[in-house]
Amino acid sequence: MKKFSSQASILIEALPYIKAFSGKTMVLKCGGSWMEEEELVDAFVLDVVLMWYVGMKPVIIHGGGPQISQIMERFGKSPKFIDGQRITDEETMELVEMVLGGRLNKELVSRINHQGGRAVGLSGIDSKLLEAKKHLNGKIDLGFVGEVKKVNPQIISSLDDDGFIPVIAPIGIGDDGKRYNINADWAASEIASALKAEKLIVLTDTRGVLKDEGDENSVISTLTLKQIDEMIENNTIKGGMIPKLRAAQRALKNGVCKVHIIDGRVLHSTILELFTDKGIGTQIVA
Amino acid sequence: MKKFSSQASILIEALPYIKAFSGKTMVLKCGGSWMEEEELVDAFVLDVVLMWYVGMKPVIIHGGGPQISQIMERFGKSPKFIDGQRITDEETMELVEMVLGGRLNKELVSRINHQGGRAVGLSGIDSKLLEAKKHLNGKIDLGFVGEVKKVNPQIISSLDDDGFIPVIAPIGIGDDGKRYNINADWAASEIASALKAEKLIVLTDTRGVLKDEGDENSVISTLTLKQIDEMIENNTIKGGMIPKLRAAQRALKNGVCKVHIIDGRVLHSTILELFTDKGIGTQIVA
Amino acid sequence: MKKFSSQASILIEALPYIKAFSGKTMVLKCGGSWMEEEELVDAFVLDVVLMWYVGMKPVIIHGGGPQISQIMERFGKSPKFIDGQRITDEETMELVEMVLGGRLNKELVSRINHQGGRAVGLSGIDSKLLEAKKHLNGKIDLGFVGEVKKVNPQIISSLDDDGFIPVIAPIGIGDDGKRYNINADWAASEIASALKAEKLIVLTDTRGVLKDEGDENSVISTLTLKQIDEMIENNTIKGGMIPKLRAAQRALKNGVCKVHIIDGRVLHSTILELFTDKGIGTQIVA
Amino acid sequence: MKKFSSQASILIEALPYIKAFSGKTMVLKCGGSWMEEEELVDAFVLDVVLMWYVGMKPVIIHGGGPQISQIMERFGKSPKFIDGQRITDEETMELVEMVLGGRLNKELVSRINHQGGRAVGLSGIDSKLLEAKKHLNGKIDLGFVGEVKKVNPQIISSLDDDGFIPVIAPIGIGDDGKRYNINADWAASEIASALKAEKLIVLTDTRGVLKDEGDENSVISTLTLKQIDEMIENNTIKGGMIPKLRAAQRALKNGVCKVHIIDGRVLHSTILELFTDKGIGTQIVA
Amino acid sequence: MKKFSSQASILIEALPYIKAFSGKTMVLKCGGSWMEEEELVDAFVLDVVLMWYVGMKPVIIHGGGPQISQIMERFGKSPKFIDGQRITDEETMELVEMVLGGRLNKELVSRINHQGGRAVGLSGIDSKLLEAKKHLNGKIDLGFVGEVKKVNPQIISSLDDDGFIPVIAPIGIGDDGKRYNINADWAASEIASALKAEKLIVLTDTRGVLKDEGDENSVISTLTLKQIDEMIENNTIKGGMIPKLRAAQRALKNGVCKVHIIDGRVLHSTILELFTDKGIGTQIVA
Amino acid sequence: MKKFSSQASILIEALPYIKAFSGKTMVLKCGGSWMEEEELVDAFVLDVVLMWYVGMKPVIIHGGGPQISQIMERFGKSPKFIDGQRITDEETMELVEMVLGGRLNKELVSRINHQGGRAVGLSGIDSKLLEAKKHLNGKIDLGFVGEVKKVNPQIISSLDDDGFIPVIAPIGIGDDGKRYNINADWAASEIASALKAEKLIVLTDTRGVLKDEGDENSVISTLTLKQIDEMIENNTIKGGMIPKLRAAQRALKNGVCKVHIIDGRVLHSTILELFTDKGIGTQIVA
Repeated sequence: MKKFSSQASILIEALPYIKAFSGKTMVLKCGGSWMEEEELVDAFVLDVVLMWYVGMKPVIIHGGGPQISQIMERFGKSPKFIDGQRITDEETMELVEMVLGGRLNKELVSRINHQGGRAVGLSGIDSKLLEAKKHLNGKIDLGFVGEVKKVNPQIISSLDDDGFIPVIAPIGIGDDGKRYNINADWAASEIASALKAEKLIVLTDTRGVLKDEGDENSVISTLTLKQIDEMIENNTIKGGMIPKLRAAQRALKNGVCKVHIIDGRVLHSTILELFTDKGIGTQIVA
Repeated sequence: MKKFSSQASILIEALPYIKAFSGKTMVLKCGGSWMEEEELVDAFVLDVVLMWYVGMKPVIIHGGGPQISQIMERFGKSPKFIDGQRITDEETMELVEMVLGGRLNKELVSRINHQGGRAVGLSGIDSKLLEAKKHLNGKIDLGFVGEVKKVNPQIISSLDDDGFIPVIAPIGIGDDGKRYNINADWAASEIASALKAEKLIVLTDTRGVLKDEGDENSVISTLTLKQIDEMIENNTIKGGMIPKLRAAQRALKNGVCKVHIIDGRVLHSTILELFTDKGIGTQIVA
Repeated sequence: MKKFSSQASILIEALPYIKAFSGKTMVLKCGGSWMEEEELVDAFVLDVVLMWYVGMKPVIIHGGGPQISQIMERFGKSPKFIDGQRITDEETMELVEMVLGGRLNKELVSRINHQGGRAVGLSGIDSKLLEAKKHLNGKIDLGFVGEVKKVNPQIISSLDDDGFIPVIAPIGIGDDGKRYNINADWAASEIASALKAEKLIVLTDTRGVLKDEGDENSVISTLTLKQIDEMIENNTIKGGMIPKLRAAQRALKNGVCKVHIIDGRVLHSTILELFTDKGIGTQIVA
Repeated sequence: MKKFSSQASILIEALPYIKAFSGKTMVLKCGGSWMEEEELVDAFVLDVVLMWYVGMKPVIIHGGGPQISQIMERFGKSPKFIDGQRITDEETMELVEMVLGGRLNKELVSRINHQGGRAVGLSGIDSKLLEAKKHLNGKIDLGFVGEVKKVNPQIISSLDDDGFIPVIAPIGIGDDGKRYNINADWAASEIASALKAEKLIVLTDTRGVLKDEGDENSVISTLTLKQIDEMIENNTIKGGMIPKLRAAQRALKNGVCKVHIIDGRVLHSTILELFTDKGIGTQIVA
Repeated sequence: MKKFSSQASILIEALPYIKAFSGKTMVLKCGGSWMEEEELVDAFVLDVVLMWYVGMKPVIIHGGGPQISQIMERFGKSPKFIDGQRITDEETMELVEMVLGGRLNKELVSRINHQGGRAVGLSGIDSKLLEAKKHLNGKIDLGFVGEVKKVNPQIISSLDDDGFIPVIAPIGIGDDGKRYNINADWAASEIASALKAEKLIVLTDTRGVLKDEGDENSVISTLTLKQIDEMIENNTIKGGMIPKLRAAQRALKNGVCKVHIIDGRVLHSTILELFTDKGIGTQIVA
Repeated sequence: MKKFSSQASILIEALPYIKAFSGKTMVLKCGGSWMEEEELVDAFVLDVVLMWYVGMKPVIIHGGGPQISQIMERFGKSPKFIDGQRITDEETMELVEMVLGGRLNKELVSRINHQGGRAVGLSGIDSKLLEAKKHLNGKIDLGFVGEVKKVNPQIISSLDDDGFIPVIAPIGIGDDGKRYNINADWAASEIASALKAEKLIVLTDTRGVLKDEGDENSVISTLTLKQIDEMIENNTIKGGMIPKLRAAQRALKNGVCKVHIIDGRVLHSTILELFTDKGIGTQIVA
């Protein structure tokens, strides 16, 4: 009878979280490299379907950097980056659209539906979800790299209300009809802001924000907006984590309640974060 | 990391059941003796709130035999039974109403609300939920012992639709305005029938239906309508289990999908039955 | 043909009141001693059903003092009062619940339903309708005598919207899950306030507020908030009428349009007050 | 106190009728000559507003024969009738439209609104409520006298649902766009049929259907479809009452529950019929 | 293939206007003399039905001066005017009601319905659409000539929401129940104001507002509120155009977006104004 | 003034079609080669937006054969066809998804939105819109070429109801989670069937179905199901037109009202077909 009790107690442990998050919008961002790991993606897909069944409104934004680079190479183009951003000429942009919007997006959608969810894939072009403008980076022309100018979240609300799960590729549409490649962390931050989401959860390939970059055990469990400013200033936080934290700050300032940076390499890390007493990774609060 | 995975896998194990039962009505019947055990009631109340949060519609019918006898004794009346049914004179009926409808019903309601649910207590008198007539048992006059003549389930649907949890004391109302004491198993069966419930779950103080009355390990895991008829005929099933099984048969014939007779003495037995791969107790199917 | 005309003219006389009160919430408070008189209750029940059919939303709060004392005596407990408030130990509170919530409440409900209404009985415990805290009265501990801390009127609105008539026993629920005995006049005042009721009608056993306590013909037809203060100060009004008038004042300050103190001993006094040109009893206005 | 009781008992006597007719459609037909009597019309208007406030859905169809004849004479035309039907040339039809649709209809509408109702005047032309065709009467050409070909009751339902009271002039519209003069009794019967009305109440200038034409005291209180056939066959019923009874028969065959032929000359005869124990006039049942 | 292209391009030219005006309320005013011209009315009716089908909400107010004068003459009364306003004694008012509300209104309604629309005729009396008071003009008593005191637009919104086209005769109802003759331009201005209409379009029998009264080619294409004041002051605009422009000014001040004064003598001038690049007539803006 | 009249008359000519098709679903299929012609696509996009604004529900299915072949060649793969169907190995299928779902679909979506529409791109994978199974063609294995097994049109209805325009890439999803390449004509036919569309309009690169394959002037204006069978049997119709006509037959048998095969090379051919008296191309009826 013991085994029974332990199963039950885990379900009961989840109850306060289910109560608290019922009907709330949860924006989940997952990166491209992570999407290569079948087992991780399968576990994540179950997490999303569980969230959806217990009454939350999950919204997923995904990246696809490695997959874009792969296809560029198959086309004989070598990917180039400046400050972590891909130089995106017209031909590259076409490949971005095909890989993000055509392959990866539909791959995630089909897996969620296979597990009983009702996902619908979108890019920022659909119903002008992400209006974009060219990103200007000093003197260097990055091509079709864009920034979010405005979010039109009606299509997401509409799908949410009718019981669908939106899965979004971060491509924006300019006033001129041109398409732009948008950083997925940033798109997730903007969408979470527009939806006044309860949480923005960013799946990364570290255990969270680290006090000591070299030590995976130095995870900081909670950060405030101000602490982030300080840690970036004094160089404790470096590299690719900086834009992630800037996106987190922006979401919090726009009304998102909490941002979590969690370890996407752990199976089911999303529901462990959401449904159990032990938060994992780093939570960022205003 | 192991602990995490096991928590997650139990939650994920629950997913198919959450999917299957989302939006479904679940009628739960619990007896009066069971209600004396604080710890069991507390665990049950959490189960109900969990069911409610993950999208099911729980409806609770409770008994109160021992508590009625207690109060009768405090009034200097000695309880008398014929074939397991209480002889209910007018004064006794008044006590039944006070104990079932006034004390036990509100006790359950207040505990559910204390855990974050939104329960509302009813008796069969409210909005004429249970229309009753006098139960005739050969030559013996049992007094105000009634049978269900008609269920008017609008008040339950109305509370369900508005997100409340109905908790029901099994008292019926006659055409003449008289109140009747109704067997709780039978009331639960009739209400489950009227609601076309997905499941009727009966919490008892045995481990289920036993093949050998004296051996708690002889639980029958599945029974059909026909097998019940046979086992009663050949005397394998005896005593108080017979009316419970007759009530189960009636519910199944009226469109309830499954009836479960489970062990109310096990903490959280309801959600173990509903959310885990190992069914417990006896399930009865058409 | 004369008789016809007089019937018609009474119906037509009712028209402006029906117009004025259509869709309005009317909170009716009736006391426990009154409930002993079958004929009065029967007439009142018809009044309620009539109000309901012509489009008003009646909400009933009832007391039960004499009935509680009776049952206490049957249990060998002698009722004690301080300043008109019953000392309520744990056992007494249990009896309060049983009598108010179990017997009287359902008695009224069943009579209304018998006349074609659709009443549903509630106590303040249901859906936490009346959140209560212990009433502190100087140094004396009155036990489980409570005050209303907060009204959660959703369950009333929900029943109203779905066409049911709520009948409420004035029992409150504390943060600690304990139940409290609440003065029915006060509960009615708080509920009328929370519902922004059109009228609060209090049925008493006098002809209204009297100028001269000993003279039933000295009914004051209209009182203002200020006049009440004066008459209490200069001792014109005394005894049990004081808390009734304080409750009336509170309701008016909270947005109830009018309070009526009428003679519950007159058959159909409620509809005479509501539907005819001659108001009866005392009306209290801001 | 006596007076009070008698007022109350008349209101209470009305209760079962209010219950029975709540939400039901009542089609009322009143003739043109009756509309000349201010006092009768004023009483009728109050009856309609009362019906509307207590939850019925009144729909009014009116005639206007005398008023049409008057205006014809002012124009120097002399009215001519064949079998009780007005010969209606084009110019006459224009006058019919102006008198029925322009003057009498708006007169009734304005009186109802003056008493607090929300009436809207229609003719059968509005939203093609009454599609008509030419009435053929052997060899004689009656001109623009029409029969109802089809009722399109959407505009009535729409006004009903939004809480307006439709008042209808019996003018029909042909496929060719021509307008036709339609007998008001017949139009009322067709509209009551299309609306599946609870009752069709015809206000006449007799006390009902008479057994002996010359004796006002010989009112028949109930008639069946079959009895009508017999009484017409054996000449007991004659003249203008015949088409009224034929219209009644048609309504009953089409699903109207009851037809009443009542004395429009009695003040408030409509509510006396609807709200009191003594039906007045003749009721006709299937 | 050329013909095809030109047809298509005209349809495509209409697209931006359809987009811009979708769901918008358009108040159209047409005069009585214009209604004598069958061909013009037929074209206008098609315009209204087209507007309605492509998603606009047309509301029509019509006059009827010449037709009223005609019928007065048939009655042996000679029409008299002071400052362009008809002296309206009681008998005249009755004729106004019959002609405007009974004949012309239903004539327009029946034509619109004949073309597939769903029109419903109203006068300002219905549901008290136009509350009026006597118009006082110095010492002269004009009789039942009224001004709009208040618009109750619920009946229009209700018909609009249910997909009907309201057609309105400008008759008002006084507090005393008297009916008043109201200037149609003014009624249209008040109704457009109450509905916060997108446009008020006034069909006249000139080509617009003329710079030089004698020269039909001197149409002013755009006027502002201020220019109107100036042109009236310096006598450029005279006669019957002044009240039309005052009504236009009032509508613009009350929130109507634009007023158009167009040539009702041109076939389909309404849709030419609404759906093509070349506005016609004079537009008036704030 | 002439020019005005001709503009107006074309708009008025469109009215009966707008009436007839208001609220109706119109499925439009356009091929891949056609999508290379900017001017044609631009005109088509305006047609779609016009249809949408005047109240129709357009649903677009597009192909993309030439574009898929192009990208295959850029990858060094040479496209191969059997009986007009592309041999689709796993790598090819990936390219199909990227080109159809990622590039062409979003290209159309972004153009429609640029003209003021609110398009949302889907593939058959989204919400399992197109459930597919492997197409078996005798002994030859075509790879991931699929047939439609079931259409789940909820996502289309949901987008339609919320005012979005669905644009669909014909990719199906197997029970096994594999994606399949589906013939666009066939997908359009199945979707039109599932939606019980009013019309299925197929844009081709001929002037319609030709009696004499070599003569563009031999367009057959109307064909019945039976005539198609005969013409295929006796070899009048050959080649690529056969599967188009088979798809048309299937749609008609499933409840689509009419199928049109029109000349996609003519600017605005869609609205010419829909809004003008001269149908163009070939219409197919049951």
